Amino acid sequence: MREYEDYYSYFENRLQQEKFTRQPYQLYEPILYTLQLEGKRIRPVLTLIACELFGGNIEDALPQAMAIELFHNFTLIHDDIMDNAPLRRGKQSVFKKWDPNIAILSGDTLFALAYQYVQKANKSILPDILDIFNKTAIEVCEGQQYDLNYEIKNHVSVEQYTEMIRLKTAVLFSASLKIGALIGGASMQGANNLCDFGINIGIGFQLKDDLLDTFGEEQVFGKKTGRDILSNKKTFLYLKALEIASEADRKRLINIYSSNEMEKDQKVKTVKSIFQKLDVARLTSDEINKYFNRGLKSLEKVNVDQEEKQKLLVVAQKMVNRNK
Amino acid sequence: MREYEDYYSYFENRLQQEKFTRQPYQLYEPILYTLQLEGKRIRPVLTLIACELFGGNIEDALPQAMAIELFHNFTLIHDDIMDNAPLRRGKQSVFKKWDPNIAILSGDTLFALAYQYVQKANKSILPDILDIFNKTAIEVCEGQQYDLNYEIKNHVSVEQYTEMIRLKTAVLFSASLKIGALIGGASMQGANNLCDFGINIGIGFQLKDDLLDTFGEEQVFGKKTGRDILSNKKTFLYLKALEIASEADRKRLINIYSSNEMEKDQKVKTVKSIFQKLDVARLTSDEINKYFNRGLKSLEKVNVDQEEKQKLLVVAQKMVNRNK
Repeated sequence: MREYEDYYSYFENRLQQEKFTRQPYQLYEPILYTLQLEGKRIRPVLTLIACELFGGNIEDALPQAMAIELFHNFTLIHDDIMDNAPLRRGKQSVFKKWDPNIAILSGDTLFALAYQYVQKANKSILPDILDIFNKTAIEVCEGQQYDLNYEIKNHVSVEQYTEMIRLKTAVLFSASLKIGALIGGASMQGANNLCDFGINIGIGFQLKDDLLDTFGEEQVFGKKTGRDILSNKKTFLYLKALEIASEADRKRLINIYSSNEMEKDQKVKTVKSIFQKLDVARLTSDEINKYFNRGLKSLEKVNVDQEEKQKLLVVAQKMVNRNK
Repeated sequence: MREYEDYYSYFENRLQQEKFTRQPYQLYEPILYTLQLEGKRIRPVLTLIACELFGGNIEDALPQAMAIELFHNFTLIHDDIMDNAPLRRGKQSVFKKWDPNIAILSGDTLFALAYQYVQKANKSILPDILDIFNKTAIEVCEGQQYDLNYEIKNHVSVEQYTEMIRLKTAVLFSASLKIGALIGGASMQGANNLCDFGINIGIGFQLKDDLLDTFGEEQVFGKKTGRDILSNKKTFLYLKALEIASEADRKRLINIYSSNEMEKDQKVKTVKSIFQKLDVARLTSDEINKYFNRGLKSLEKVNVDQEEKQKLLVVAQKMVNRNK
C-alpha cells in the first residue's frame, strides 16, 4: 500500500519536472522560486489519494493536483503582500525578494497557469471540475477578505471566525478531495461525502496554524512567530482568551492586542503570557481535536474500502499534529 | 441592422443587471464600482458581433462577453496598482479609492468571477474556449511584465515594443473575436481568420492609447496625460522620436526621459516639445493607420456576409479614431 510519502514524492517529482522557466523570466522566476520552496503538498496529495480511493489512477488526477497546488501558491504570494509577511516556508516571500508589483503579476500568472491544468480534465468531467474550482477560488478570496476585515473589527465571534477559516482554508482541502474523487470515478454524491471530511480537517489545520503562529518553534515553523499578534489578527486563541478571561485580563488583552504602539517583542511576549495564564494553547488543541474527530466521523460515512480510507486518516493526523 | 450602440446598450444593460452585490461587501463593492465606471465595452461588443457574424445568437455569446469584460477589468485594477495610476475612466482607481490590498483581492476575485462566465459555455465547446481564455490571460500577464521591464531597460526596439503591446493588449481583442466566432458556430479555421484582424486593430488601439496618453485632452480622455512620460514608458512615440532625432536631440531626450528628478510638469512639457518638433504625433497616426489597414486586409479574407463584416469595420474605426 502506498504511504503518504509515496504520494508526496510522486507529486513533488512531477511538479519539479514541469517547465516554468520561460520568457519573460522576471515573471516566471518568482513562480519557479515559489514552487521550489519546500511545501507540504497536502492538498495535491489529498487529490491523488481521493482519486485512488474511488478506484482511479493517480496519473489521471495529476493535472488537477497541479492545478490545486498552483492555485494555493498563487494565494500565498498575494496573501504575503497583503499580510506584509517577509517569510514563507523559511525563505523570503516573493514581494520581499522582488517587489510587490512582481508579486502581484506572478501571482496572477500562477492563477492562470492553474487553470491550464484544470483544462486538462476529460471533456465529460471538465464542467464539474471547473465549477468546483471557480467556486472554491471565489470563496478563498472571500475568506481572505473576512480575515482582513477582522483585523480592524472590534467584536468577532468564534462562529464568525470559524466561518472565515472555513472559506479561507477549509474549502480548498474540500475541493482537493472532491475533484480527486470525481476524477477517480466517484458519483457526485460520493464526492460530496468526502467534502465534510475536508472541511473539518481543514478547519483543524487552520486552528493548528494559529497555534503554531503563536506557540510554534520558529526554526521548525519556517515563519516568524507572533505575526498574528502583531497584526491584531482575531485568531481562535485570542477569541477564546476573551471568552474565558476575567474582566481585568479581558480589558488588558483588548488594549494590548489593538495597540500598534507597543514595542513588537514586548507586545508578543505580553499577549503570550496572558494566553499561557489562561491555558489557551490547550483549549486550542481541544478545538483542533474536536474538528479532527468530526472529520473522522464524516470519513466513516464514505463508502469505500476501509484500508484505503486509512490513508486519508494518516494525512489528517499529519495536518493537525504538524510542527510546521 | 444592429449598430455598434445597440450591441453596447444590450451588453451594458445586461452587465448592470448582474448581481455583484454580495458579502463581504468590502470585496464586492470595488468590483461593482469598477464595472459601473463608464467603459467602452469594445471587447464584449466584438464578441457579440463575431458570434452574429457566423450566424449565432448574441444571447448565446453573452456569458463569454461578460467573461472577457470581467477579465479586462481585473487587469485594469491590478495594472493601476503596478502603474501607480490614480485615475481610471475619469474616476479614482480602486487602489486609490480603497487601498492596494483591496485592489489585489477584488482583482483576484474578478478574475475568478470571469471564469464562472467562461464555465457557462456549452459542454462541447467549453474546452476550446477555456484554452483560448487561459492562453490569453497568460499572454496578457506576460505583456504587462514586458511593459514593466521596458520602463527600466535602456534599449527597446520598435519591434520589441510592438510584441509587448501585442501581448498586453491585442491578444485580448483577438480572443474576444475568436471566442465569439466559435460560439456563433465558426470552424476553428474560420475563427482563426478573425484573429489576425483582432491583433492588428488591437495594436492600432494601443498605439492610439499611447498617443492619447501624451496628446489627449484630459477632460475627454478621463486620465491624466503625460503619465507614460513620467513613468519613463518606452512608447512608440518615444522610440520613434529616438529613431529620427538628431544626435543632440536624441541625447537630450534620453536624458530627460530617464530622469526622475525633473519637476513633473516640466518633464512632460519638455518631452512633448521634442515630440512636436519631430512630428511624432503624425508619425504615430501613420503607424496606427498601417495596422488599421492591415486589419482590414485580414478582415477581407474572412468568409462571411459583406454587410455583417461592415459592423466590425465600424468598431475598428471607433477603436483608432477615439478621443478617450
